[in-house]
Amino acid sequence: MTNFAIMGFGTVGSGVAEVLRMNGASIAEKLGEPLNLKYILDVRDLSGTPYGKIAVQDFSVLENDPELDVVVESIGGAKVALEFTRRALLAGKHVVTSNKELVAAHGRELLAIAEEKNVNYLFEASVGGGIPVLRPLFQCLAGNRIEEIAGILNGTTNYILTRMVQGGVPFDEALREAQAKGYAEANPAADVEGLDAGRKICILSDLAWGREVRPEAISVQGISGLDLRDVDIARRAGWRIKLLGRALRLGDGRVAAYVAPHLVAESCPIASVDDVFNAILIRGNAVGEVMFYGRGAGDLPTASAVMGDVLDALAHRAKRRNLGWREPAELARTDRDLVMRWYLRGDFQAPAGSEALSGGAVLTAPLTGAEAQDLAVRLGARALLPVFG
Amino acid sequence: MTNFAIMGFGTVGSGVAEVLRMNGASIAEKLGEPLNLKYILDVRDLSGTPYGKIAVQDFSVLENDPELDVVVESIGGAKVALEFTRRALLAGKHVVTSNKELVAAHGRELLAIAEEKNVNYLFEASVGGGIPVLRPLFQCLAGNRIEEIAGILNGTTNYILTRMVQGGVPFDEALREAQAKGYAEANPAADVEGLDAGRKICILSDLAWGREVRPEAISVQGISGLDLRDVDIARRAGWRIKLLGRALRLGDGRVAAYVAPHLVAESCPIASVDDVFNAILIRGNAVGEVMFYGRGAGDLPTASAVMGDVLDALAHRAKRRNLGWREPAELARTDRDLVMRWYLRGDFQAPAGSEALSGGAVLTAPLTGAEAQDLAVRLGARALLPVFG
Repeated sequence: MTNFAIMGFGTVGSGVAEVLRMNGASIAEKLGEPLNLKYILDVRDLSGTPYGKIAVQDFSVLENDPELDVVVESIGGAKVALEFTRRALLAGKHVVTSNKELVAAHGRELLAIAEEKNVNYLFEASVGGGIPVLRPLFQCLAGNRIEEIAGILNGTTNYILTRMVQGGVPFDEALREAQAKGYAEANPAADVEGLDAGRKICILSDLAWGREVRPEAISVQGISGLDLRDVDIARRAGWRIKLLGRALRLGDGRVAAYVAPHLVAESCPIASVDDVFNAILIRGNAVGEVMFYGRGAGDLPTASAVMGDVLDALAHRAKRRNLGWREPAELARTDRDLVMRWYLRGDFQAPAGSEALSGGAVLTAPLTGAEAQDLAVRLGARALLPVFG
Repeated sequence: MTNFAIMGFGTVGSGVAEVLRMNGASIAEKLGEPLNLKYILDVRDLSGTPYGKIAVQDFSVLENDPELDVVVESIGGAKVALEFTRRALLAGKHVVTSNKELVAAHGRELLAIAEEKNVNYLFEASVGGGIPVLRPLFQCLAGNRIEEIAGILNGTTNYILTRMVQGGVPFDEALREAQAKGYAEANPAADVEGLDAGRKICILSDLAWGREVRPEAISVQGISGLDLRDVDIARRAGWRIKLLGRALRLGDGRVAAYVAPHLVAESCPIASVDDVFNAILIRGNAVGEVMFYGRGAGDLPTASAVMGDVLDALAHRAKRRNLGWREPAELARTDRDLVMRWYLRGDFQAPAGSEALSGGAVLTAPLTGAEAQDLAVRLGARALLPVFG
């Protein structure tokens, strides 16, 4: 019998318990013995629920149980979750999480503790919900030099954008719809301002290139300032607007990472990823482009990834997964080191080296962000967005 | 220093050598020591090539070298490749392959030898070329009960179908184009008759449900009999025709697997996968639908997957990956146990419970294959294809 615990019994935590209930028999078959949910740690009183008998409110019960093998951290945030994760790893427990905020901000430290204690700290569910992407990246694509990662990493904003593009609904109204459907939180800032996507592109970069990219060090632009006019102009010319987290390896070896709404050509596979779905494109120098697609959030999809990690942690009990990244290196600046094509909105005459749209233009020649800004000012353009693909 | 060998220096084998040349430094960093290509085994004389010094023609050199850790088998077929794989595993070498014919026909036996000798036999490259799909299936999705797998598993036929759909080119002409571009072999039977896709859906089924599905036991239909009229009728009504390998778990626990051209709704993410690209949809009871997309063939993409497996085999030297499947179980019959929607071509009056197309009909109510055959005869339909999604 192998024992695990769930810390934080919200959407993800209760999803993990549900996946064990649904698939316990096949999980036991894969593991070679039953997987037993021994504790649920939550601040709430669960005594009236079916899980009352295994509910605890004191973390030291988990910490001091020598028969507890794995802890699932689904508390969220980077305060209590950080303290409990540290202590669980120091107590020799494997830890599995879906907490992107914690991994992006403290992953390096936590992985170093895990290495010291020879346990696993795994977080497949932190990016792309149920979509397998981190393990394919660091394992299946290990023979590649990764050149670029670009993804629709946040389901809430993708739902809002889909409503704006397909329904012609303004941002505020689409946000209210998303909240009514439970896709967006009452305080939607982390989603709509791009912070959530920013954390995820940092984790992908950390794994792809082995150096930490700090979430506060990258440029992040969300969709709250997006104008329905740009959505319309783009759509009529065969483009979609998508919020992308993007990370690139430049020729000098530096990495650039950022989040921004992009024009994406209709023919690009990522353009047709709608609603709450996520998709991540990875370009390697041997494999070319591969894409991973699926539900980026939700209780059971996320719990699927957590359960995969729990089984993987147990399969690597004796010899932990060699996973980690080093201190940050100098990042490339997105405003002047990255050269991209741009979309500008306005009634100006489309400049030389650009494709005229009705109400704007897409540059055919790439410019840095700073150059594009200058051009936008010179033309009196009222919107400026990068172009992907 | 870790030593490996390549057996069979064709497209895939030379791609693996090229990936090592391109990315040797980062591969060494991940491995913790240099990865050395010690031998290339090929029937041809390579003495005039840059690889002349490591070329050998006698397998026993590899078999008897105690310092050789991993063997890449890229010979193809199931004769010499089978003998050398058996002997390499028995000699305690890890074996990595892209050989779907061998894995589909003899994987169970070879994995049993690997288990006995505590070495790894890995074959990510055998399905989907460079696309990570087998490892995500058996590892990241291990917490799921897999319900269905459906994929565009053969790039040659997908290229031909893309030309037929988008270019209105008849099958024979599209095949000649594919041959001219090097996508199809001089004898294209394994591709166009669906055998290659059949082997791959068997491997996916083996891993998804842990029981062998024999390639000769499943129903396989290719695209050589496909009529351009059906392509046109379908396209005008919002459908694409795609050759899918498909495997399902039925309610009684039996598995059904088959290969056939399907009508796929335009809105399905797999419908827009064109040219030589592959995509595999997997549906699990927790994760929902996830899709993996990329180049399903080619020297470097396939070599990317092989190299990922080489590194993974070495990371699991001490404790091999627990991988394998048991003897075959009774398969469900696709003609009578599987209930699907169908497309029929003809000038008949569209029957009740069907959507009329110009020149045919799509049934809205599902039927077994046998029932659909009866209906087709009764209506005098001149084509019958299953509908996906």
